Amino acid sequence: MRVRAATGADADAIWAILEPIIREGETLTLPCDMSRDDALAYWCAPAHEVSVAERDGVVLAISYLRANQQGPGAHVANAGYATAPQARGQGIARALLVHSLERAKARGFRAMQFNVVISTNERAVKTWLAHGFEIVGRLPGAFEHPRLGFVDALVMYRAL
Amino acid sequence: MRVRAATGADADAIWAILEPIIREGETLTLPCDMSRDDALAYWCAPAHEVSVAERDGVVLAISYLRANQQGPGAHVANAGYATAPQARGQGIARALLVHSLERAKARGFRAMQFNVVISTNERAVKTWLAHGFEIVGRLPGAFEHPRLGFVDALVMYRAL
Repeated sequence: MRVRAATGADADAIWAILEPIIREGETLTLPCDMSRDDALAYWCAPAHEVSVAERDGVVLAISYLRANQQGPGAHVANAGYATAPQARGQGIARALLVHSLERAKARGFRAMQFNVVISTNERAVKTWLAHGFEIVGRLPGAFEHPRLGFVDALVMYRAL
Repeated sequence: MRVRAATGADADAIWAILEPIIREGETLTLPCDMSRDDALAYWCAPAHEVSVAERDGVVLAISYLRANQQGPGAHVANAGYATAPQARGQGIARALLVHSLERAKARGFRAMQFNVVISTNERAVKTWLAHGFEIVGRLPGAFEHPRLGFVDALVMYRAL
């Protein structure tokens, strides 16, 4: 597996990963009917450093890294991850996370924060906890899950 | 005192309130050298419902109301407030808060969240607590205060 910076040529691959996850609506706070253009504009926003994890030339997971806030909050990084459903459970998001943490540290960020980790997304919570993140906040009913209704979202944080 | 929707004619008044607060750098996560145009573009973004509180025709405080997240997180509102330094301690932010809570409820939001309340901003924390918000998260050192160094930021939340 290889993690590398995304290029414009990755747009189709990025959308192929995002589309089922956005349509499913269980982990990201993006509208489940979001268009390809809007999703790519969001994930690949100018301020985002986008990375991809690929195996045998096939992109299996994607991430972005950015400052979570501006000005006096700009030393805290934020990142997002998405793994192709068929590639879950193979340590791919983990590899992207490790890459993000290294990049964030290299860029001088002092901490990383996840603003909305869905409490029912046990795989993600477990992975972030295993990599030094703590649950520093719980947002009651902040996420409307398509099957489970209103579920809590977590704020997770770790120093770098 | 009167709270009303902002119009394009309020741009000067909004900047007059924001400029000293942004330059001071103690309460908002905006760059302290932010330009007028960038600040107005931020505060009056298309998705923001901007309100002003005025007395005798003079705008003394401003707010915005928006969805904090998209899609499955769009039922949680977010708001921002700024009070002219010389008008602090007169219940003006409180009036804007009450207005925001009413507007958020009328628009169908189920909760309101503040993402980055600076822990040293005691006036704000006290006001939010007095109006039903709870501290649901603490972000260690997430705000670089110009005099106090890295201080904690709070995540505050209340149901509507």
